[in-house]
Amino acid sequence: MNGAETLVHTLIDGNVDVCFTNPGTSEMHFVAALDRIEGMRCVLGLHETVVTGAADGYYRIAGKPAATLLHLGPGLANGLANLHNARKARSGVVNIVGDHAVEHLKLDAPLTSDIDAIAGSMSHWVRSTPSVNEVAADGEEAIRQANARPGQISTLVLPANVAWTEVPERKGSSKDAPAAKAGHAPHDFDRIVNAMRNDPQPTLLLLGDQALRAASTELAGRVAAATGAEVRAEFYFARLERGAGRLVIPRIPYAIDPAMALLQRFKRIVLVNAKAPVAFFAYPDKPGRLTAPECEFLTLSTVEDDPCLALAELCEALGAGGAAPAGIALSGAHEPASGALTSETIGRTIAATLPENAIVVDEAVTTGWGFDGLTASAAPHDWLTGCGGSIGFALPTAVGAAIAAPGRRVLALEGDGSGMYSLQALWTMARENLDVTVLIFVNRAYSILRRELAAVGAGAPGARATDMLSLDRPDLDWSSLSKGMGVTAVRVSDAEALHVALARSYATSGPTLIEAIL
Amino acid sequence: MNGAETLVHTLIDGNVDVCFTNPGTSEMHFVAALDRIEGMRCVLGLHETVVTGAADGYYRIAGKPAATLLHLGPGLANGLANLHNARKARSGVVNIVGDHAVEHLKLDAPLTSDIDAIAGSMSHWVRSTPSVNEVAADGEEAIRQANARPGQISTLVLPANVAWTEVPERKGSSKDAPAAKAGHAPHDFDRIVNAMRNDPQPTLLLLGDQALRAASTELAGRVAAATGAEVRAEFYFARLERGAGRLVIPRIPYAIDPAMALLQRFKRIVLVNAKAPVAFFAYPDKPGRLTAPECEFLTLSTVEDDPCLALAELCEALGAGGAAPAGIALSGAHEPASGALTSETIGRTIAATLPENAIVVDEAVTTGWGFDGLTASAAPHDWLTGCGGSIGFALPTAVGAAIAAPGRRVLALEGDGSGMYSLQALWTMARENLDVTVLIFVNRAYSILRRELAAVGAGAPGARATDMLSLDRPDLDWSSLSKGMGVTAVRVSDAEALHVALARSYATSGPTLIEAIL
Repeated sequence: MNGAETLVHTLIDGNVDVCFTNPGTSEMHFVAALDRIEGMRCVLGLHETVVTGAADGYYRIAGKPAATLLHLGPGLANGLANLHNARKARSGVVNIVGDHAVEHLKLDAPLTSDIDAIAGSMSHWVRSTPSVNEVAADGEEAIRQANARPGQISTLVLPANVAWTEVPERKGSSKDAPAAKAGHAPHDFDRIVNAMRNDPQPTLLLLGDQALRAASTELAGRVAAATGAEVRAEFYFARLERGAGRLVIPRIPYAIDPAMALLQRFKRIVLVNAKAPVAFFAYPDKPGRLTAPECEFLTLSTVEDDPCLALAELCEALGAGGAAPAGIALSGAHEPASGALTSETIGRTIAATLPENAIVVDEAVTTGWGFDGLTASAAPHDWLTGCGGSIGFALPTAVGAAIAAPGRRVLALEGDGSGMYSLQALWTMARENLDVTVLIFVNRAYSILRRELAAVGAGAPGARATDMLSLDRPDLDWSSLSKGMGVTAVRVSDAEALHVALARSYATSGPTLIEAIL
Repeated sequence: MNGAETLVHTLIDGNVDVCFTNPGTSEMHFVAALDRIEGMRCVLGLHETVVTGAADGYYRIAGKPAATLLHLGPGLANGLANLHNARKARSGVVNIVGDHAVEHLKLDAPLTSDIDAIAGSMSHWVRSTPSVNEVAADGEEAIRQANARPGQISTLVLPANVAWTEVPERKGSSKDAPAAKAGHAPHDFDRIVNAMRNDPQPTLLLLGDQALRAASTELAGRVAAATGAEVRAEFYFARLERGAGRLVIPRIPYAIDPAMALLQRFKRIVLVNAKAPVAFFAYPDKPGRLTAPECEFLTLSTVEDDPCLALAELCEALGAGGAAPAGIALSGAHEPASGALTSETIGRTIAATLPENAIVVDEAVTTGWGFDGLTASAAPHDWLTGCGGSIGFALPTAVGAAIAAPGRRVLALEGDGSGMYSLQALWTMARENLDVTVLIFVNRAYSILRRELAAVGAGAPGARATDMLSLDRPDLDWSSLSKGMGVTAVRVSDAEALHVALARSYATSGPTLIEAIL
């Protein structure tokens, strides 16, 4: 058995049994090992941003890390932006990066790079395995790091000579490396109970991370019913369980002015696996912190904790355990929308058609700003957003989510600008016949930047700036792009056609792309 | 005038007047400045790998750096792989990377990342400008670093608050920051002269970098004629001036066995801006250095030197100045090729049709291995190859080359696997109406990896490995992809059709994509 085979065994034994990959020569022994060893599902991406983004989506749904297989420093570099997004989503990922044989590194061959620096820029843990005898132990540690709570990016560099060297026998691996258990630190528990009981002030329960699963949001709803507090979600989150029968939990707005208008009302914010809200970007003459200066922050739980336990204890202490949660979304008929495609008609059409238990991956950017309210009472579903702000996350993340959840429909909401960052993901959807519906909003612009240009005080765009923010000249033709990668596409330009296209896509196995011309 | 405007003025004054860009919110003041200040050509790329690859191509042809404008750490990360290639090509690039306002960084907003680590991994010089008063000086230094010889990657981080802060008056900039002058260190000059005069041994003149310009290769040809030495080019090079009337200067082969077979013959290698040849990858039981153990290396000049001066002095010392250079390519009629598309018929068709003074950007990988010999006597042209081994360089590099050389035809030779890494470049070709002909070789596989799997001793691929090395299922349809980005496409499957398509493309302004089905 060689080092590559040892590592594949270690991954499988450590419950890492999906590998998103774009290999090269230095990874050929790993690829060959995948032939000989059963138990690893391999998914090819035609650019590494697909590979790392898929690993992010996989973790969010499967709750455990996938492996990536990347080609030396430059291959890893191509995947960094979606590792950034995964990191901010607190997704665990095990990157396996091939490298030149150690002796070869001294020769400064073309693909030699500072792989440690590249990996270090986005990883919580990096190690280059120096010897075949350490492969199993290093692989186990990489898995353990990725499985930490919150999830972490671990990167294991495997030099080619370590991959191809034979090892007499594989060192025993701890077959069931236990995932880190969520603890429950009390933080400001007593102060929170006391304040909510005895000091009525406008109070926000701000939920993030794992607190956005249905079990936790229901408990938050009970606290709200018993105390009059409001409940909100952070603007970006890895996964929110929502829809009919679950708590309506609006997001903090992205745009700084409405976000401040909302948040300035609160004198007290209870953080449940959330952070104090800050502006996405800095703007001249506006604060970075969006809350009132006198606002009091109290921490119920952090991302290291189990928010469900913390909220259950809070319910009990407040006598809210029996309260019906405030603001549960009612299921009911959704009136079909009609007419031109606008944020509103699109949002209503999504709500009317979404299949039960769907996974929505949201990178709709400007077009999607109204969807939060419009889709609150759609059939129960998971909603995933970009957490790191680096565009190009949705299509790859949809790939990973679909691999993690066979039988569930994935709906990727994508801007035409963002989609161009990782359109190669369409090919993987076709190859793996994934049940993904890609809905592209074609406004032929980086619309958000037009707003931002004004927001940062840079004024109205002139000819050159307009050019830099526009995707026309030539128009992107997403139907052709999709066809070019083997994904059936349909173009729609009104709500009725969108309704039909979505319903048809959901009823059809495999991927579809819907090009919505706004 | 604010910091962003100061920087734009500094760039233009420093003769950096092309900016390849993909901006975001933190760069909006820079974008607004481009509106107000004349003299900077801005070219939008829909992914940062297009932006950095274009800067590489621009430098290779223009001989001076372009600027890039990138969006924070993740935007820079997306461009790293082609910065790696630019670095290995010794291309100078001035990266301008926006960052959050300094105060905002403390808040750990979603797009916050370790920008210094990301930049440091691929840059020769990195600086984050702390104050608007230092923008001009930092900008000048960034330009100076990029203009060093050999060219360097310089990365200037511009925090948003520095961009938007007003500065009373711009500090005077040194309007004509002089490019670093090439020196000429003698190195092993006397030993080379003595050996070539008095000690006849099989000798190779190995040329790289700037030594591959026609003025130098002609001098090398004189030395060869006078001494019997052979002349070769490194396998990868930023720019080789070749074709009819110029020295035929074959490349060292990529594949290790033929490379070794060639190189082992030589007892002496004279390095002219070249490095001792090493294997691209390491292979078990094969050496990394490809030359005979007893081979003597003598350095005539390094990449810091002017090879033309060095070769002229060598000619003089050897009395070779009057010799007719050995092995000049003859111009002549090229018999049109016919029949199936093979490396040979494609190479012959390229040679027969190539317009004078064309720029060929070569990422043909396996399909192109025979092109070197087949195209040696095509009309005079520049030939550019990937220098860092990170695939996805050709289409972006073609963009930059075309921007640098209006009126010259650019021919990008691209594999279907490599092309998928940066297909977004097609859109920029369409927007800028660049005279680029993209010739895609469709073999529906990472063919080179099938060879490499065997070469590294990993055996024949099984089902899973085959899947990871194949681009079928579904087939990529490059004509549709091209149409989707506004570039006219034509599909050909024999040499006659390729001939017609190439000729038609050269006669037509703007880009064309030719999908060659092998």
